[in-house]
Amino acid sequence: MASISTTPKVHVSQITFNKFLFSPNTRKLSFPPSIYFPSILKTKTVASSLPPSSSPSSSPHPSVTRPVYVPNKISDPNYIRIFDTTLRDGEQSPGATLTSKEKLDIARQLAKLGVDIIEAGFPAASKDDFEAVKMIANEVGNRVDSEGYVPVICGLSRCNEKDIRAAWEAVKDAKRPRIHTFIATSGIHMEYKLRKSKKEVVEIASSMVSFARSLGCDDVEFSPEDAGRSEREFLYEILANTPGIENVIISTHCQNDLGLSTANTLSGACAGARQVEVTINGIGERAGNASLEEVVMVIKCRGEHVLGGLYTGINTRHITMASKMVEEYTGLRVQPHKAIVGANAFAHESGIHQDGMLKHKGTYEIISPEDIGLERSNDAGIVLGKLSGRHALKDRLHELGYELDDAQLGNIFWRFKAVAETKKRVTDADLIALVSDEVFQPENVWKLLDLQVTCGTLGLSTATVKLVNADGEEHVACSLGTGPVDSAYKAVDLIVKEPVTLLEYSMNAVTEGIDAIATTRVLIRGEDQHAPTHALTDKPLQRTFSGSGAGMDIVVSSVKAYVGALNKMLAVKQQSSTERVSTKRTPVSA
Amino acid sequence: MASISTTPKVHVSQITFNKFLFSPNTRKLSFPPSIYFPSILKTKTVASSLPPSSSPSSSPHPSVTRPVYVPNKISDPNYIRIFDTTLRDGEQSPGATLTSKEKLDIARQLAKLGVDIIEAGFPAASKDDFEAVKMIANEVGNRVDSEGYVPVICGLSRCNEKDIRAAWEAVKDAKRPRIHTFIATSGIHMEYKLRKSKKEVVEIASSMVSFARSLGCDDVEFSPEDAGRSEREFLYEILANTPGIENVIISTHCQNDLGLSTANTLSGACAGARQVEVTINGIGERAGNASLEEVVMVIKCRGEHVLGGLYTGINTRHITMASKMVEEYTGLRVQPHKAIVGANAFAHESGIHQDGMLKHKGTYEIISPEDIGLERSNDAGIVLGKLSGRHALKDRLHELGYELDDAQLGNIFWRFKAVAETKKRVTDADLIALVSDEVFQPENVWKLLDLQVTCGTLGLSTATVKLVNADGEEHVACSLGTGPVDSAYKAVDLIVKEPVTLLEYSMNAVTEGIDAIATTRVLIRGEDQHAPTHALTDKPLQRTFSGSGAGMDIVVSSVKAYVGALNKMLAVKQQSSTERVSTKRTPVSA
Repeated sequence: MASISTTPKVHVSQITFNKFLFSPNTRKLSFPPSIYFPSILKTKTVASSLPPSSSPSSSPHPSVTRPVYVPNKISDPNYIRIFDTTLRDGEQSPGATLTSKEKLDIARQLAKLGVDIIEAGFPAASKDDFEAVKMIANEVGNRVDSEGYVPVICGLSRCNEKDIRAAWEAVKDAKRPRIHTFIATSGIHMEYKLRKSKKEVVEIASSMVSFARSLGCDDVEFSPEDAGRSEREFLYEILANTPGIENVIISTHCQNDLGLSTANTLSGACAGARQVEVTINGIGERAGNASLEEVVMVIKCRGEHVLGGLYTGINTRHITMASKMVEEYTGLRVQPHKAIVGANAFAHESGIHQDGMLKHKGTYEIISPEDIGLERSNDAGIVLGKLSGRHALKDRLHELGYELDDAQLGNIFWRFKAVAETKKRVTDADLIALVSDEVFQPENVWKLLDLQVTCGTLGLSTATVKLVNADGEEHVACSLGTGPVDSAYKAVDLIVKEPVTLLEYSMNAVTEGIDAIATTRVLIRGEDQHAPTHALTDKPLQRTFSGSGAGMDIVVSSVKAYVGALNKMLAVKQQSSTERVSTKRTPVSA
Repeated sequence: MASISTTPKVHVSQITFNKFLFSPNTRKLSFPPSIYFPSILKTKTVASSLPPSSSPSSSPHPSVTRPVYVPNKISDPNYIRIFDTTLRDGEQSPGATLTSKEKLDIARQLAKLGVDIIEAGFPAASKDDFEAVKMIANEVGNRVDSEGYVPVICGLSRCNEKDIRAAWEAVKDAKRPRIHTFIATSGIHMEYKLRKSKKEVVEIASSMVSFARSLGCDDVEFSPEDAGRSEREFLYEILANTPGIENVIISTHCQNDLGLSTANTLSGACAGARQVEVTINGIGERAGNASLEEVVMVIKCRGEHVLGGLYTGINTRHITMASKMVEEYTGLRVQPHKAIVGANAFAHESGIHQDGMLKHKGTYEIISPEDIGLERSNDAGIVLGKLSGRHALKDRLHELGYELDDAQLGNIFWRFKAVAETKKRVTDADLIALVSDEVFQPENVWKLLDLQVTCGTLGLSTATVKLVNADGEEHVACSLGTGPVDSAYKAVDLIVKEPVTLLEYSMNAVTEGIDAIATTRVLIRGEDQHAPTHALTDKPLQRTFSGSGAGMDIVVSSVKAYVGALNKMLAVKQQSSTERVSTKRTPVSA
């Protein structure tokens, strides 16, 4: 394999090896690992003392001393930057479409976690995406904490002036703005999608990175799309395998198609990468991306003794809350045996925790639940009762990461009281369900007023529904159906008159006991010919929309979820019909 | 690290490195990796030609040529044995308790997959466990296919004569029986649990393996429990790090607490292990075990070019069916972004499959859905309609892995017709839900006859329930509740009068459209003081029981699920009260 020595073609601060990793000594690309853990796994043994946070035996929640942020440099060679792309790559999961408010909420939570970089979205994709990134940059990107921490806010863009300009406009007001630009480097993409030669692709990449810098952005990340199938020599050329590479931070971005994304990411870090791209719960297209919580907890537990001293700046106590929020908003359920954040991750069959012999904490658990902010449901999480006041509720919601205005708090408070009247214990999980149901719903186009259902083994389920629209007009319809939900949805359809397909329907009780609040989630697909089109093919995008509803009556919560999904769809439809000429939503796979 | 040369202490065919891996050259233990991928990752480059099945580019479903089974020897050095422990370790997941019928069903499916060894259970744990293992040994363990394949049936046992005798009695009628025995080797377990010295532990292990062989079993596997915290030198001693080790097959058993079980398992294989212990969907206690489907598909996709020629005997086309069956029976839902078997694993946002440019099959998918037996829901899976007859139904169910007697088929057929009248397309998923609901329910103690429910936003949900018991006595009760399910469950409670806590409640539509069949699953815990006790502490085991119900009315299916879980609990309660003196159910963590 020839060593290529040319001058750097691009002037960037970060390079992402999408599906590729470096070997530490030669800085050449090693075998494609997104589909397999790498065969080279040497750790750099850097002689430096570690901050106490990286030691698993130290006090559980020390304040992390992280190196001052400089775009292309990390003063401590053992520090790994966490680049969270839940809001960009994660949101591309089928049905995971988030509203701007949900994105802002998640970004706030990511800042609490202390992620170094938040990839907030793809501003050129649509007006909605642009506004969401801008809002996050303005708010989350400007809250500097007492230790000087504020996350970098990053916007994705293709390698063209329009995209890059949009990305810059969206992120520039953040204290630490970054543009992340990408271009395909594989033969198949260059030939069929870009219709460009290698020389042209290098020229575009180089000039567009320069363009990004000319706008005033001194923090630029470049990624070769579809690197896994690109010619290695060409990758060396475009990625600057040259003198000067030591001034660039190498980044990993591993997909999980074979269940190896966490291992691959860690291998990258061991091989010299100092930025890792991850998502909460490991969400993303297909089998998703490397999980933030897995990568971070491995580094926390094994960084000192196995990984040569690597550490991160993450405050792991906020992991559980971040996981639950992302699960709730995206509708992507975490399986019970998911590492770190699954419901069973700290549970044992047969009440083994009661076993006197197992009081030795370390016996079965290498991580304590408290490390990730998890309160065991049996002995904690009981926070409020029916005598709790508005102030206690507000305080608890604030601790949970929700910042509500007075009107929102008022709505929640009355629903909270209604639940507290019926249930003895109102837990954090109940509160989160209520907040999600009441506050973080899309703008109301339609709202459920009344519902009445009869069903049973007789098989003649009948539902009557009363909805009110934004103009205050009330509509009533009734319908038969195969079950209570089917009949209620058919009645809603008679009023709303939008052709949709219900793709998924699921429900979970959020706490123990059947008197618990149940959360229903639906995923629908609009069967509309005027949908936005794919930027590459101009074919209509069959977008999907999720909705959720919470309540103590599962039929009522099912109807709320359905109306919520319809509202989301109608809002996007309305917006895209006003901007159809100017912009198109663009899916990316970088 | 001293090299220890003693004569082998135990005469076994397999040794499991529970949480430990070997480095290939020295055969010494390397760093504990269940909590981290290993730092040594050399593959053995064995010069041998590969069978065509291991090549990802070869025809998708060749019949696998597997080496003839010999307990302690594999004629082809590249062949990896798949040891499935879904029925033993997987069943220890909270709430995953399986009935004997469900176990037999899963064992049949594992044989279709072609796993080399089925760990069918822990015969000494209870009469139920014993009977299930025996049934699997007799049936699945005796069906030799045309190529001579029949799975080894393995029973787990502690290192004592009673356990080993029970294991042998349960498996001995299989064509290829195996006893898997284990003893703790960590200081903490030896001191507090066993109250034995190292010398005594070695003596017990050695004599009990000899005892197993003396019964006539020439296929014995030995595992050191809690190896991850055992002294290395002691492990070398008990595991026979001596001349003769080349006549033993090394096995891996990796937990997934940090999301690295697949990588660790593969690392073990690269380092010389030739048996890997896995479960379908990666289920198991806490974060579960290495996933069969991930390990197998990595070896299939990368065995030839990256893993030095490794291959398995698995027929991957049966993976999807096995995954769905285990998900259904255990109630452990697979997350949408689970690698290989998640609902999104082959799905892309925005209808990217319709994109003309992406007709190149390999573009985004490194595995084709057909490779794992997945029919895409949009264009396949439509198998039967309302004109289909009993014979077509029977054939399809047979292809899906269900073998029903005439009475069972008769029941299913009428329910199938009822669904086909209402739904245009009856898919495989619908059929599986029906079979599971109708046939593989626990023995009926109580059965739902009639149900009538009124609910809605008025908030006065009322349910009337009619149940019949095994003696044919009908009972009717009505109750108010906070929702339709709460009121119906309260009415059931008035009849059944068993104190239980509802731990989980979830529901999923199994196919698209709200007229689809919904499957409800509940998990309950009996609050009974006469529960079986923990073998080590004699404290009561708080066992949990799952139940599922399918139907087009979610309230009806919810009640069926609840009654099913109650029946399971009542059956176990009845049985354990008759055998309380003689046996205790024992949880293990080997």
